[in-house]
Amino acid sequence: MMTPAATALGLHLRVLVEDPTSSAAQVVVDAPVGAARDEEAVEALVAGRPGAVAPAHAAPADVLTFEHEHVPSALLERLVATGLPVHPTPGALVHAQDKHVMRRRLTELGVPCPRWAAVADAAELEAFLGSTGGEAVVKTVRGGYDGKGVRVVRSARDVDDWFDAAARGEGAELLAEEKVPFTRELAVLVARTPSGEVRTWPVVESVQVDGVCSEVVAPAPDLDPRTAEEARRTAVAVAEGLAVTGVLAVELFEVSGEEPGAAPRVLVNELAMRPHNSGHWTIDGSVTSQFEQHLRAVLDLPLGDTAPRAPWTVMVNVLGSARDELTDGLAAVARTDPHAKVHLYGKGVRPGRKLGHVNVSGADLDDVRRRARAAAGLLRGEEPA
Amino acid sequence: MMTPAATALGLHLRVLVEDPTSSAAQVVVDAPVGAARDEEAVEALVAGRPGAVAPAHAAPADVLTFEHEHVPSALLERLVATGLPVHPTPGALVHAQDKHVMRRRLTELGVPCPRWAAVADAAELEAFLGSTGGEAVVKTVRGGYDGKGVRVVRSARDVDDWFDAAARGEGAELLAEEKVPFTRELAVLVARTPSGEVRTWPVVESVQVDGVCSEVVAPAPDLDPRTAEEARRTAVAVAEGLAVTGVLAVELFEVSGEEPGAAPRVLVNELAMRPHNSGHWTIDGSVTSQFEQHLRAVLDLPLGDTAPRAPWTVMVNVLGSARDELTDGLAAVARTDPHAKVHLYGKGVRPGRKLGHVNVSGADLDDVRRRARAAAGLLRGEEPA
Repeated sequence: MMTPAATALGLHLRVLVEDPTSSAAQVVVDAPVGAARDEEAVEALVAGRPGAVAPAHAAPADVLTFEHEHVPSALLERLVATGLPVHPTPGALVHAQDKHVMRRRLTELGVPCPRWAAVADAAELEAFLGSTGGEAVVKTVRGGYDGKGVRVVRSARDVDDWFDAAARGEGAELLAEEKVPFTRELAVLVARTPSGEVRTWPVVESVQVDGVCSEVVAPAPDLDPRTAEEARRTAVAVAEGLAVTGVLAVELFEVSGEEPGAAPRVLVNELAMRPHNSGHWTIDGSVTSQFEQHLRAVLDLPLGDTAPRAPWTVMVNVLGSARDELTDGLAAVARTDPHAKVHLYGKGVRPGRKLGHVNVSGADLDDVRRRARAAAGLLRGEEPA
Repeated sequence: MMTPAATALGLHLRVLVEDPTSSAAQVVVDAPVGAARDEEAVEALVAGRPGAVAPAHAAPADVLTFEHEHVPSALLERLVATGLPVHPTPGALVHAQDKHVMRRRLTELGVPCPRWAAVADAAELEAFLGSTGGEAVVKTVRGGYDGKGVRVVRSARDVDDWFDAAARGEGAELLAEEKVPFTRELAVLVARTPSGEVRTWPVVESVQVDGVCSEVVAPAPDLDPRTAEEARRTAVAVAEGLAVTGVLAVELFEVSGEEPGAAPRVLVNELAMRPHNSGHWTIDGSVTSQFEQHLRAVLDLPLGDTAPRAPWTVMVNVLGSARDELTDGLAAVARTDPHAKVHLYGKGVRPGRKLGHVNVSGADLDDVRRRARAAAGLLRGEEPA
């Protein structure tokens, strides 16, 4: 989804793809194949050596950036040492790679978080459960996404397998967090340049189903302006405190204020240091999309305007069902609302997999939401209601 | 500019490019090299034969369409005879290839045109000049664009070279048209599917400098609603009368009404049977861009919503100057308004060449126009005013 923005700005994009049929390889001309953990592949990518890339594209990269966080820090540090700009820097990126490092640093910065503890064994987890009413969210410190590596537990036995794996040196450390009694989930997308310019988009509401984002409403409906301002300040504090460069998504829990009449508060749930699902609405709903903004930010160009283009934009994810009707995607597109903006990712259908999304903008939220849901349903292969 | 729309709709685009460094080759993964007049190259393109395309892309095309009109009709007719959908059809496309055929057909359809005559020699041109106040616009019947192949003449001697070339069998036939005393130029973009669905975008004003489009204002300011409706009806009549499939741009002259108080009238100037410069504003300014709509139309999918996203959108072309500052395009982008949407084409700089465009949308036309012009000026290498 970064290619249209790169093309418009006259930028050449070279992408390391896992295999030649991946989504990115379908739309990026200069797409060498390799794994993000393969040092040689990443070095050939940034060097742009003939052989690794086509002769016409043989040129070193001006900057290296990421569409996921799973790139080893040591490799990135070595590239930085060669003088290559890497954004976000490995020093910032580690906070999106390691949830323990993230919680420790946010706590140091005074950023509001759920209560948390690193737990090395069952006894430590039971102690934490004792202090949080008998229930907690346990997360693997590295590698989780979309609900994977996250469990709600009432006993240390619920994560026996994770402790066993950790004891064998196969699994990661664990993090326990209080199960926050949130009223809803919010997200703030923020971009920051190496020069320090920062811009945020309006605070959005993010609806999760089984730990996977289902729908995003921009801006978050009925949001107390004080809460919106706290959410925005929190996101900027994280971007500045961690020296993030590029786009950062800050996922938040909205919780009731403690005193009657007090504004709801926010607690930081997760960070993603890249364009993120909670910002896909910006492709059609904002003057500058998160993808254009990320490119501007990592190149240290001035940031684009983040104003919304319409009073409301709703994004609904198209998740794979057990059926494979999406393989006839055009027939589904044909049945969708002429006002819906369809974005498909060129992926094979698997149940639960994010295959695309739909954006709808307009002045009437109920209408916009209904149309976005209906269009996504048709793309998933559901019959119209 | 069609690639982002194709990607979003999950379509695979295969483009015949003139050379491997062309704009399209920079952004389209499946881009065999060949000339549009080369029968073998076009046949290999639509057949998707291994060797002509990468093994991973080896598959026949579902539909053939164009980004310019210079493809021989005979070749297209042979492809149609094989059962390949070709849109626009060769029978429609000829009206954008041959100005004489176009004028004859529009006149048959009762579509308002300037007075015109096919002129085979100097005597016929002098006779036409005698009937139009001594001045006329003479055009080569085939191959003209952006003011090329068009001259304002007061004597047949002004096009001696064209008549000489025609006599030697090297040049094309000529068309003479009255020099219309227009008040301004308008354009209507319309899309039509093979099934007959038709949608138009709002009528725009197009500002030409030396025969080249400089600026487009959407919608056309202060347009009499009766004139807008006549313009729209004219465009639909052309699309339906010529059985156009895909996007059609109808360029119009606005002329004063004959009676006091009468609405201004429109006359058809030129046709383009493809996405067109007068529709580049739709990329940012309309729910559905002309590029997405063209893909929908040639695939016979239902058309997208053509509603504007903002009260005003102004598009300003970035034309090459004698300087080559655009080669440092990013520095120029960095100095442009954060609200301006920059679209660069990846072309080398030549004086007068269209290198990109800028779109700005908003509620205040004067502000929008000023910002769009300033951004385009910076991209051209001009210093800020």
